[in-house]
Amino acid sequence: MKIISTQSDSFKKEFDEILARAKTDIKGVSSIVTQIITEIIEEKNSALKRHIQKFDKWEVKSDEELLISKEDMKKAYENIDENLKSALHTAYDRIKAYHEKQLPKSWIDFEKNGTILGQKVTAVDKAGLYIPGGKAAYPSSLLMNAIPAIVAGVEEIVVCTPTPNNEVNELLLAACHICNISKAFKVGGASAIAAMAYGTQTIPKVDVITGPGNIFVATAKKLVFGEVNIDMIAGPSEIGILSDSTAKPKYLAIDLLSQAEHDEMASSIMITIDENIAKQTSIEVENYLKTLSRSEIARKSIDERGAIIVASSMDEACELMNEIAPEHLEVMTTNPFDLLSKIKHAGAIFLGENTPEPIGDYIAGPNHTLPTGSTAKFYSPLNVENFMKKSSIINFSSQAIDELGEACAILADTEGLTAHAESVRVRLKKDN
Amino acid sequence: MKIISTQSDSFKKEFDEILARAKTDIKGVSSIVTQIITEIIEEKNSALKRHIQKFDKWEVKSDEELLISKEDMKKAYENIDENLKSALHTAYDRIKAYHEKQLPKSWIDFEKNGTILGQKVTAVDKAGLYIPGGKAAYPSSLLMNAIPAIVAGVEEIVVCTPTPNNEVNELLLAACHICNISKAFKVGGASAIAAMAYGTQTIPKVDVITGPGNIFVATAKKLVFGEVNIDMIAGPSEIGILSDSTAKPKYLAIDLLSQAEHDEMASSIMITIDENIAKQTSIEVENYLKTLSRSEIARKSIDERGAIIVASSMDEACELMNEIAPEHLEVMTTNPFDLLSKIKHAGAIFLGENTPEPIGDYIAGPNHTLPTGSTAKFYSPLNVENFMKKSSIINFSSQAIDELGEACAILADTEGLTAHAESVRVRLKKDN
Repeated sequence: MKIISTQSDSFKKEFDEILARAKTDIKGVSSIVTQIITEIIEEKNSALKRHIQKFDKWEVKSDEELLISKEDMKKAYENIDENLKSALHTAYDRIKAYHEKQLPKSWIDFEKNGTILGQKVTAVDKAGLYIPGGKAAYPSSLLMNAIPAIVAGVEEIVVCTPTPNNEVNELLLAACHICNISKAFKVGGASAIAAMAYGTQTIPKVDVITGPGNIFVATAKKLVFGEVNIDMIAGPSEIGILSDSTAKPKYLAIDLLSQAEHDEMASSIMITIDENIAKQTSIEVENYLKTLSRSEIARKSIDERGAIIVASSMDEACELMNEIAPEHLEVMTTNPFDLLSKIKHAGAIFLGENTPEPIGDYIAGPNHTLPTGSTAKFYSPLNVENFMKKSSIINFSSQAIDELGEACAILADTEGLTAHAESVRVRLKKDN
Repeated sequence: MKIISTQSDSFKKEFDEILARAKTDIKGVSSIVTQIITEIIEEKNSALKRHIQKFDKWEVKSDEELLISKEDMKKAYENIDENLKSALHTAYDRIKAYHEKQLPKSWIDFEKNGTILGQKVTAVDKAGLYIPGGKAAYPSSLLMNAIPAIVAGVEEIVVCTPTPNNEVNELLLAACHICNISKAFKVGGASAIAAMAYGTQTIPKVDVITGPGNIFVATAKKLVFGEVNIDMIAGPSEIGILSDSTAKPKYLAIDLLSQAEHDEMASSIMITIDENIAKQTSIEVENYLKTLSRSEIARKSIDERGAIIVASSMDEACELMNEIAPEHLEVMTTNPFDLLSKIKHAGAIFLGENTPEPIGDYIAGPNHTLPTGSTAKFYSPLNVENFMKKSSIINFSSQAIDELGEACAILADTEGLTAHAESVRVRLKKDN
């Protein structure tokens, strides 16, 4: 694995390459996706069926065939191995408990003059979850997208997933059963996003669409943003690790590889203040690469997009890591909590040697849907608030408008809005 | 003003027209805006200067000329009328106090097995505020966009505003002084949005862009979403009013008109359960229209997009209003708080006869940047969290990984991710 030093002449150039890591560039597919969306808006179910025939290679004979029955979900659940069932329930319970802690509260506040101001928090009415299908069907994605919506109190949660050759992934169905999903549809890709954004005869129009997907799904999400809300536009997975001399190279290596195995475009970057740790980790990466089932993907990712940076201090390491703003950040140092105030930008922060990143993918509780490609500088992990929204509450007393009305009217006058000013002043004339 | 009854045969059709009210349709200008953004990415300041020459009709001779000096802001502030100055300060203080109540807290939580989970909340590093210029330069927009960023703790807040003929609106400058804005640039339209999203030699790349604007600005915001975060894509202003027999027709009329005067595309809808109030309000609207300075705009808006709906019960009225999900909602009933639990979707809710909507535009405290065109179903008012983001915190103890590691590894196995599984299992072997 490539080792670079912050002291080398070429460091700035090499670091810029790391910063410019894979982002989702939608230009290439924008026109195709726009066409797909237009067809769904105009033809609804009949376009959906045509797209399924084309992309998923099966013929939908009736609208009812688009729906996955609750009975199928239950059957799938009953058929899975007991250990797996138990693991899924543990994951469900822990994810739910964490997201319950995120729930924002409505509040009101009282002023002496009788004014009441507040903020009402409400769940959206309908949420649409997109879950990839076929080989990349991850039951964990269903849990991570459904549970925040459930905790938020969304009344109708809809799932869309592609079913190549009309085959549904059984694990996904089992996860749907655990989350008590009432409506799941065999629809994938940009068509599914468009269907949930605009509605068809079968698929309800939702308010929020979340969930991972390929470039077509990501592009469709961006294009329907505004018609519905979306969570974020996710790119390839990433890990950043901060380490010092106390970290175990074997742990560091397998953690770097756990992102690299996702995708050739994945990015695994360690910044360490110990040159020896850098070297040992690189050796352990090579050892592990011989044993992994997905080693071909992992090797390409490590070779082309991986790097170990040797920094001259932990302050410098933190600064660089904040610039990278990785999706996942592991802190493998003597006192990981000490660095928490210096870490400004990361999707999820994994502290200490007992907290490998995959713990967060499945079972810890926090969401695994996280901002990639430096967008942790401004996006949050998927959370209950993605499925909620706020309304301001304003109640002025008679005294309050007497005290503040004229100032308000002056500002309205200044902006040339006479009806605004009059709507306040008419209330100041006590002979109304 | 048009009065329709929910009992009439044509009601559904008429209500659908109300629901389909003006939305921002970006298709028409997408290609022009894409071209503008591309030019800014490729040519930076030189494209900016060319666009200013073309759209704002003045020649920028040096990069420095793009910047509005802090001294100019101070001078503008010193020159304004004392009553206005005092009104601006009152507004600033109240808006700040309200937004401080919104500040989310970082939290951590402890489990018996030693696991620590939490959520860290951090301000973004840089925010860019777009404020329209020329005639539509509203100092209140600057306050409403800058204060949430200030309260969030954003270190660098940048303002862009167009200056047709190189003339800066003095009130806007005064508001910049009050908000202690350090960097304001004479750049407007889609160019400004692109400059803040990608950075130029003079204008810093920011993390979040907020603020109102015309269709070109709205389109640019949508197109750069993902490269930066944005607040929302706002359309024409709207008011909804719920009223019963105790409401004063004169108040209802001027409040409807206070939205109508904004824009011919603005939408003013009242739903009342009292037919007499409907008629009286319509008469008062006519009376007021004779006196307003912007009556031509207001009349067009009222005639083409205004309506009074007579509902058969307050429950029905609330249901219809939730479907409309108006930007502003006034509740002018005997006990307005009684309806608060039935109101699910509205940007801001104004309760009682002393709370006209303009109070919220300027002085009440809550933000006046609100979701329009039914997007209150999923968007929130502009708030401090638009300028903040979260990171999950995970710290597993040795006991926690022993207890939960195998369940995690089983889930990773199931998804075929062997490095994920191994990164957990390697920690379960205590001989490491």
